[in-house]
Amino acid sequence: MSFAITKENIDQLRNLVSENKTEEVAALVKDLHPADIAEIMDDLNTDEAKFIYLLLEGEIASDVLVEIDEDARKRFLKVLPPEFIASKFIEFMDSDDAADIVAELDEEVQKEVLNEIEDIEQAGDIVDLLEYDEDSAGGIMAKELVTVNENWTVATCLKEISKQAEEVDEIFYIYVIDNDEKLKGLLSLKKLILNPTNTQISNIYDPEIKMVNTDARQEEVAEIMDKYDLVAIPVVDDIGRLKGRITFDDVIDIVREEAEKDYQMVSGITGDVEPGDKIWEVMRARIPWLFIGLLGGILGAVVLGSHEESLAKVTELAFFIPLIAAMAGNVGVQSSSIVVQSIASGVKDIETPSRKLFKEVSIALLTASIFAVLIFLYNYIASGNMALTYSVALSLFIVIIFASLFGTVIPLILNRFKIDPALATGPFITTMNDILGLMIYLLIGKMFFGIL
Amino acid sequence: MSFAITKENIDQLRNLVSENKTEEVAALVKDLHPADIAEIMDDLNTDEAKFIYLLLEGEIASDVLVEIDEDARKRFLKVLPPEFIASKFIEFMDSDDAADIVAELDEEVQKEVLNEIEDIEQAGDIVDLLEYDEDSAGGIMAKELVTVNENWTVATCLKEISKQAEEVDEIFYIYVIDNDEKLKGLLSLKKLILNPTNTQISNIYDPEIKMVNTDARQEEVAEIMDKYDLVAIPVVDDIGRLKGRITFDDVIDIVREEAEKDYQMVSGITGDVEPGDKIWEVMRARIPWLFIGLLGGILGAVVLGSHEESLAKVTELAFFIPLIAAMAGNVGVQSSSIVVQSIASGVKDIETPSRKLFKEVSIALLTASIFAVLIFLYNYIASGNMALTYSVALSLFIVIIFASLFGTVIPLILNRFKIDPALATGPFITTMNDILGLMIYLLIGKMFFGIL
Repeated sequence: MSFAITKENIDQLRNLVSENKTEEVAALVKDLHPADIAEIMDDLNTDEAKFIYLLLEGEIASDVLVEIDEDARKRFLKVLPPEFIASKFIEFMDSDDAADIVAELDEEVQKEVLNEIEDIEQAGDIVDLLEYDEDSAGGIMAKELVTVNENWTVATCLKEISKQAEEVDEIFYIYVIDNDEKLKGLLSLKKLILNPTNTQISNIYDPEIKMVNTDARQEEVAEIMDKYDLVAIPVVDDIGRLKGRITFDDVIDIVREEAEKDYQMVSGITGDVEPGDKIWEVMRARIPWLFIGLLGGILGAVVLGSHEESLAKVTELAFFIPLIAAMAGNVGVQSSSIVVQSIASGVKDIETPSRKLFKEVSIALLTASIFAVLIFLYNYIASGNMALTYSVALSLFIVIIFASLFGTVIPLILNRFKIDPALATGPFITTMNDILGLMIYLLIGKMFFGIL
Repeated sequence: MSFAITKENIDQLRNLVSENKTEEVAALVKDLHPADIAEIMDDLNTDEAKFIYLLLEGEIASDVLVEIDEDARKRFLKVLPPEFIASKFIEFMDSDDAADIVAELDEEVQKEVLNEIEDIEQAGDIVDLLEYDEDSAGGIMAKELVTVNENWTVATCLKEISKQAEEVDEIFYIYVIDNDEKLKGLLSLKKLILNPTNTQISNIYDPEIKMVNTDARQEEVAEIMDKYDLVAIPVVDDIGRLKGRITFDDVIDIVREEAEKDYQMVSGITGDVEPGDKIWEVMRARIPWLFIGLLGGILGAVVLGSHEESLAKVTELAFFIPLIAAMAGNVGVQSSSIVVQSIASGVKDIETPSRKLFKEVSIALLTASIFAVLIFLYNYIASGNMALTYSVALSLFIVIIFASLFGTVIPLILNRFKIDPALATGPFITTMNDILGLMIYLLIGKMFFGIL
């Protein structure tokens, strides 16, 4: 009960494990919530985690397995025989978690595990769920739900619910279906409690129900549930038959994942990096974007190298290279992340394309003017070199406009081609803007210094 | 019912509004969900929105008000008399929404509105909630909940719940308290339905309950609810008395807000930018960070200017300025956003500081070595200028290490001083790394070219 997850306690636990003190470890772990046990497991090595696993029973063991880190789980399941995975874990899980975990296994192991599941209904549910795309509503829904027929009375319902409720963790809503299994509406537990037992369900259920199709994208599902504050949403097939339900905890995960993905992209990190990660895992996430940055830098060097003579003649031009590059990068990232966020937020956008373009162009022009004037004033006062003053100000003006427009247009194009628009916020676009900015700057500089 | 939110439909609605066709507008809006009406309102101007508002009734009007954009709401409430706000909106709202909206009003208006509320219990709840810090559990909880006494039977409960349930939208959990209002545990509706009516509550409630103190930070609340997949969590005061509850929809909002805040910071945007925003609103969000970038660029120009002679002698040095600056910036942002994300994820980190430092230093050294070798090879092959080859490679090595360490340490320091660590991911640190990188590069370059 009072086992707090601190370094000292974990070390103590490790010691007990290394001394093979089964009883003490079991006593420590026994009263913990599966989510806490999973958190502890993530801090242990595979052998230590396995020691603790063998002490867990039934539903707790399977709940812990669902909660632990995906990499750790894969490593762990690799060493277990299929019948053990089936009987000790999969049998106890909700169908959605079970399907997710089966999907993580190698193809042959998948089949073996599925064949070892004794509860044939559970096995069937998992096979059904595996059919759906993993990012679709069908892929994240669970098959466990409580349904009642519209023709039943409250009394019949209460009896039937008692039976069905056993395998459903939380009821949330009771779904009302007709004789063809088509979803008609929902019945809140509140209504069920507050109505006399002989009331017919068709008289008290709420037909105004939000539902999604099995094909709906998970982001869309999250959007609807968030917008209407739904604890759970039913999933139906193309002819309206109830197939499963998605609960709020899945939505929180989707929102978090989406946000993290975009955040990593804009920070130039590939994939998830977590506090406990190994050095090579962190390196693997960081190297790719840095490599793109390096190539960009080399390209920049080539561009500057091709203007060597001009730079040798007018050294001052070099001074403002970092300014031009930085402004181009910053403006580009701002523009593209605004677009990415507005795509991600899913707010329906009723601005017409022409109005949107007008707005973007106005913002670009205004921003460019403000900063061109500021840098003009600075150079005018600080250096008095008029060719330099004009070159830097005019280049900055043009570079900001280009960077804004690229930053806005590129994520929109990516999105149109079903590529993640967040790609445009990464170092890729910054690098591109850097180089373009340099080229514009050198060209204009040469013009004003009369060395074109 | 079938009113879809498209540009055409909104335009049609606007026309009806401008022609004062009250009945047609009312018919269109009548069957919409408040969240949909709010979405439409956000696309209309204040007068049009007001026209529609006056057609809404009771709870729907107040639900819509809760859902619309904060800026629009403030503008709208400014033109309404306090008694209207109280009687038409606040009376119908859940206490948490009511408190949020009252908090948005000017101080004098707040008092007037509070005094106009007829339901004295509601007014009292709002006053209580306003006492709490708005980012604390107390500040986001609602006072509406269903409680039962541990000494009651299932039958008494069902009767009491019928009474209490009227003002609670969704029950989720029934909280069990003792005679001192101290929270003892919870009772699921499932248990209540599945047990005989003469069962005493003390025999069937679940004492293993997660709760938070009114002082808990909202991020902490979100973390706990997410970790344990809770639909709602009870909030207690220092002596364990039940004060309110927080529901999953608040958590989704918190997760989303936090993620957006961090995302905006790393993209160099101040505050929220939404698709419908006015040009000046977007400008206001973008100018500040760009201004910092400009200052950084000017500082960079000053640094380069102070090395004018060397640059004039060795023009090639200028070629790699963008590369050094870009790599410094990218590495810095990567490091700091990894730290920010690990702080935000709230995963308890059991790595010791010395282990963490070792890991960071290793990653920095490895990354620096890889890229120093790559750029060394490039320059060795492409230019053959050995002084340049050594300068760029060695500078890049040192710059990557500095940028990694700054990127890691600065957000940790900010966090220690209770400043948002995400500040370190913004253009601020990139700019700093740029300039530091330039200084290191020029110094090393001069050394190798023998012009120090």
